[in-house]
Amino acid sequence: MSTKAVVLLSGGLDSSTLCSLAKSQGREVYALTINYAQRNVHEIDAAREIAKLNDVAEHVILPIDLSLFGGSSLTDKSIAVAKDVPIENIGKEIPNSYVPARNTIFLSLALGYAETRNASEIWLGVNQLDYSGYPDCRPEYIDAFTRLAKLATKVGVEGAALEIQTPLLHLTKSEIIKLGVSLGVDYSITRTCYDLDENGLACGHCESCLLRKNGFLEAGVPDPTPYRNDA
Amino acid sequence: MSTKAVVLLSGGLDSSTLCSLAKSQGREVYALTINYAQRNVHEIDAAREIAKLNDVAEHVILPIDLSLFGGSSLTDKSIAVAKDVPIENIGKEIPNSYVPARNTIFLSLALGYAETRNASEIWLGVNQLDYSGYPDCRPEYIDAFTRLAKLATKVGVEGAALEIQTPLLHLTKSEIIKLGVSLGVDYSITRTCYDLDENGLACGHCESCLLRKNGFLEAGVPDPTPYRNDA
Repeated sequence: MSTKAVVLLSGGLDSSTLCSLAKSQGREVYALTINYAQRNVHEIDAAREIAKLNDVAEHVILPIDLSLFGGSSLTDKSIAVAKDVPIENIGKEIPNSYVPARNTIFLSLALGYAETRNASEIWLGVNQLDYSGYPDCRPEYIDAFTRLAKLATKVGVEGAALEIQTPLLHLTKSEIIKLGVSLGVDYSITRTCYDLDENGLACGHCESCLLRKNGFLEAGVPDPTPYRNDA
Repeated sequence: MSTKAVVLLSGGLDSSTLCSLAKSQGREVYALTINYAQRNVHEIDAAREIAKLNDVAEHVILPIDLSLFGGSSLTDKSIAVAKDVPIENIGKEIPNSYVPARNTIFLSLALGYAETRNASEIWLGVNQLDYSGYPDCRPEYIDAFTRLAKLATKVGVEGAALEIQTPLLHLTKSEIIKLGVSLGVDYSITRTCYDLDENGLACGHCESCLLRKNGFLEAGVPDPTPYRNDA
């Protein structure tokens, strides 16, 4: 019997690679997409398509309106998305795209989902670039959540294994892209831009687009992202 | 300046007592009610009324449909609520009203809310009776979450204090009721029944009702709960 794994799938570049990686390693994938009042529905459509292409066992899309809390440019439209930041500065400070306690909220929801499906793993697509800027992407944070998960749940108390898998943690964006290409990920589907337009076209100037563009460049892979004309 | 505290307020007996206690100790209260597809809207109305009576700084009601995961009699209508369990057996096993990872999900959301409001405390109404039955109510769980919270957040990384307050943890139901009465809590408003009817009347037979009835009896306080005729 294959190992059941909950994969947190945003529909972006990292988590789409993660989903293919989990499948390639024989996991029975339960994909969980948290629709937290992001700026754009195209991300959710991308997640749906990626889940389908990966033939997942189940895909749950859970809406949660984190804009009620505010405090992030990703959920609060009154905070402007940063544009054209020099690439070497990205990750040096906690950016305004930081959603308060986001990974804790996402991992908690994944934990509840995992428990009901008897899944013994949760896969999270955090990586090097994230963890330099976001506190909840660092290895010591992941370790603390793993300890918590064992204490928090019925299955944990009963001694079942529950692991948080973060196989992208030490990879650069270009290494993730190379990995994804080797797994056959179609990056033209994935969406990562913080400021997608109504047609699902990426801006090309936000931190996420800049990192993604640079990743394709470094990987020597043609960038299939649908950008707007002024990108 | 008074300390800002996020209080997780379900509108039940415990969290309503907690909310009054936080106010009585001079906290500026940010009440957070998670509407997780419970069986009844009367609980949300109770939370709203309790928040108003306590003159909180803000009350956020966050809907999240945990019935998408299932696995609990509180969110999954196909699982029957246990009735007329002998009171001495309640808390010996994990009951089917256990919502997978519930407190982890609630505390994570409270953490996100606390961070955006610069609150340095999260108050949670777990108590002795809960922590014998639910894994995520035990003191070692609360300690693990506190460690996680410091690693998870921008404020935590920057060194700000963030404490999880659980002042009801070692109290019995009757002690909580005596405390609440001394603080002027109107328990006729609060709702705890797992099987409320459409008029907001309690069943009198579920585990929550049995514990509540017994608590009022032991406290020597008349039970103001609106029960159905057959309770």
